[in-house]
Amino acid sequence: MAGKQQQTAITPTRAENYPEWYQQVVKEANLAESSPVRGCMVIKPNGYAIWENMQADLNRRFKETGHVNAYFPLFIPMSFLEKEAEHVEGFAKECAVVTHHRLEPGPDGGLVPAGKLEEPLVVRPTSETIIGAMFSKWVQSYRDLPILMNQWANVVRWELRTRLFLRTTEFLWQEGHTAHATAEEALVETRQMLDVYRDFAHEIMAMPVIQGAKTVAERFPGAVDTMAIEALMQDGKALQAGTSHFLGQNFSKAQSIRFLDDQGEHQFAWTTSWGVSTRLIGALLMTHSDDDGLVLPPRLAPTHVVVLPIYRDDQERALVLDYCKSLVAEVSRRPYHEGRISIRIDDKDERSSNKVWRYIKEGTPIRLEIGPRDVAADVVFMGRRDKSPRDKGNVPRQQFIDTVADILDEMQAALLERALAFRQAHTFQIDSREAFDAFFASDDASGFVLCHAADDPAYEEHLKSLKVTARCIPFEDNEALAPCIFTGAPGCRKILFAKAY
Amino acid sequence: MAGKQQQTAITPTRAENYPEWYQQVVKEANLAESSPVRGCMVIKPNGYAIWENMQADLNRRFKETGHVNAYFPLFIPMSFLEKEAEHVEGFAKECAVVTHHRLEPGPDGGLVPAGKLEEPLVVRPTSETIIGAMFSKWVQSYRDLPILMNQWANVVRWELRTRLFLRTTEFLWQEGHTAHATAEEALVETRQMLDVYRDFAHEIMAMPVIQGAKTVAERFPGAVDTMAIEALMQDGKALQAGTSHFLGQNFSKAQSIRFLDDQGEHQFAWTTSWGVSTRLIGALLMTHSDDDGLVLPPRLAPTHVVVLPIYRDDQERALVLDYCKSLVAEVSRRPYHEGRISIRIDDKDERSSNKVWRYIKEGTPIRLEIGPRDVAADVVFMGRRDKSPRDKGNVPRQQFIDTVADILDEMQAALLERALAFRQAHTFQIDSREAFDAFFASDDASGFVLCHAADDPAYEEHLKSLKVTARCIPFEDNEALAPCIFTGAPGCRKILFAKAY
Repeated sequence: MAGKQQQTAITPTRAENYPEWYQQVVKEANLAESSPVRGCMVIKPNGYAIWENMQADLNRRFKETGHVNAYFPLFIPMSFLEKEAEHVEGFAKECAVVTHHRLEPGPDGGLVPAGKLEEPLVVRPTSETIIGAMFSKWVQSYRDLPILMNQWANVVRWELRTRLFLRTTEFLWQEGHTAHATAEEALVETRQMLDVYRDFAHEIMAMPVIQGAKTVAERFPGAVDTMAIEALMQDGKALQAGTSHFLGQNFSKAQSIRFLDDQGEHQFAWTTSWGVSTRLIGALLMTHSDDDGLVLPPRLAPTHVVVLPIYRDDQERALVLDYCKSLVAEVSRRPYHEGRISIRIDDKDERSSNKVWRYIKEGTPIRLEIGPRDVAADVVFMGRRDKSPRDKGNVPRQQFIDTVADILDEMQAALLERALAFRQAHTFQIDSREAFDAFFASDDASGFVLCHAADDPAYEEHLKSLKVTARCIPFEDNEALAPCIFTGAPGCRKILFAKAY
Repeated sequence: MAGKQQQTAITPTRAENYPEWYQQVVKEANLAESSPVRGCMVIKPNGYAIWENMQADLNRRFKETGHVNAYFPLFIPMSFLEKEAEHVEGFAKECAVVTHHRLEPGPDGGLVPAGKLEEPLVVRPTSETIIGAMFSKWVQSYRDLPILMNQWANVVRWELRTRLFLRTTEFLWQEGHTAHATAEEALVETRQMLDVYRDFAHEIMAMPVIQGAKTVAERFPGAVDTMAIEALMQDGKALQAGTSHFLGQNFSKAQSIRFLDDQGEHQFAWTTSWGVSTRLIGALLMTHSDDDGLVLPPRLAPTHVVVLPIYRDDQERALVLDYCKSLVAEVSRRPYHEGRISIRIDDKDERSSNKVWRYIKEGTPIRLEIGPRDVAADVVFMGRRDKSPRDKGNVPRQQFIDTVADILDEMQAALLERALAFRQAHTFQIDSREAFDAFFASDDASGFVLCHAADDPAYEEHLKSLKVTARCIPFEDNEALAPCIFTGAPGCRKILFAKAY
């Protein structure tokens, strides 16, 4: 190999053009594609299966923390949005608005909208207002609290510049909404759900995240406090992977969520909301994938092991397929994580080298190519997605069966470790405004930057000029206080800065 | 009890006012309620949990028949809908139309829609056209076929008169969409998915259904053939519980889904679509429930067994809760159907008679009330939803653990049997138009009516005048031919008629 240019399955490589590499991985792994509807994507079966695995794990965590699923209307009356001033300000510019409820033949033969609505309806960009309206009916007494609900839904935020998974007009998400009798309880909930997201990111996505509070300038419209998990992508840009909002009494006052406390006094409830979306699939891709395509942490991989039978004639086919089927029967009984090993045979009529490359690009953790000689030797010829495509070898059949779950665990752990090491190598402590400016002025500026800074919109314009954003005020390892490098204000904690998606 | 008027948990009873009884069961079982958005419902946690159980079972069946899940856009460009003439005719009158993509302050201070779209977007009433557009990109050669996809989604059909679950502006459903190289294969698929629906209805919902073809007048707009499963509700009205459409080449021509066959010739694909919706929850309710509220077949019950601890002081509480917890630990390990027994303790601070009645109204199959004396005697005090609320008794603890799965199986089987017996008792063979008219002219007209009749819109107006619809042309037991009772046309099979939801 020495001296020879290594071919990659994805063109361009990450180093050559990261944004274009991203699009190509999404395409070659069959995750999603653009639709004829501007800004809306089609999530293809490979992408949707990852989302279903994310949903299953998150649902388990939500349930364990006492939440139940429900479903609220897609449409929100315009007047509901208007009730919370910051909220409407935040979302009015990107709302799909339904104004009519039928189509009629127009003057030139084509259809035109008809049946104008008395009040326009907005397609939900988020559901605080409509869910709050229901909570206000359900909450009468402190005995009705807390309400701990979640919904899985599609939401729409009109976007002009879209990118598959990362920013689309319609996306899928979950939104948790809770109501509590006290501020303390609501704050505990807000933080608890941020912890659920961190644990999910670490344990399931193998994606390290930093937890922190958003600065005033970056808060959710209408929230008192927004907490977030922030991840670092391979190109050194940050990605907000999940948020949890302490809404105080803003929405309960706007929607009149009131209750009689145990002293017989009327009180407004304290509410929270929290969400993650299909954006996580983009984050997953940009955390682990390589120049050969998607790399999936085994705990999210729809298929753990793909078996590719190789034969030249019907006699060989019968022999090989028998062997493969008995292997699948044994392996699929083996426990792995919360379920069992997912293994399947791909016996489609297609060149096996094509198949091998497709599964590499799709990120399947383990590939087994099995021909008559493997059957005779009672081995499997194994390729692993965490090794070079050419680094393959024989493993005795029984050994493979006994160790496959361990291999997957090892791959999962190694992905997290690698991503952590990458983040450590790309996190910088900066102690002066000059060094900050110099760092981000460079076109190659890449990584997380920590510096003592005030939570103050005063230097927001300066950040904008550098195309930098405050990602969060980290919770951990952030006790030491020092003056703000921008304003000189004393006693500031560190804020995490980065260029961001 | 003799001579005394029996109290029921639901007022009115079914006999007194069936539609109002339905609303009250939905309310008292906490399944759903109306939202402030006209025609849109909120599916509450109890209702949504039933839907999730339905989804899990259907997903397993779809996967076993080779289908994969994906997700397509919520919005459909108006021009797409127009491409298939019958389709647009069928849906134009009930479309939510998005015409703007932002809100702006208007002249009088309130918000007004702004950012007018060049082409209005329709909120999907069904997705044949947008999915067809994607299929046309994905299908080039016969090797790309079949495509076997499903999506779980919300859809919107503007309804003026709505009823929770049965007819709402927004509802949740699954829509399967497939493309095939031959008409034969597409027809096999259409029928296969109807069989999946029937099996699901029988095995999981304990709801008997009749399979058949829709008459020409009742076909899906754009379909060549529509097949349906039809169920009979307790009030003698029919409910269409699922449909499977053979779309021929209508949509593949409208959307240009073309492929090169193995002879190198261009062909249009043959497509199908099939769906069931949250309407099934209404069907479930009207198949099994009684004057005390919801009755759930155990295979769809989110909780199989609820344990209600009863105590007077902290000492009793500790004793009773210990006993309950160890019971829950043992029972929840017991296998049932595709998973395990779902059992939980309700230790909320509330009168236990209130709790008992709530679980009766919510349809929980088994209730255990456990107090200190039960602990001392090592028994559980059991109430079953299939028996009278007052018919409760002691069961030795170990016996309960050993037989709980059998009890649930027995309840599941008994529900199907009872529903089948009801349908048999309310299915009538009618051989003349006079008898048909007399039957349906009565205000008490209730049940399925079978008669030999032509699949001919000629007598459609007559049916309308009687408020009767042709439900389907049953597949089974329908070989004998006879003249149409309406038109006299010879050689007709039987058609199933009923008043319907």
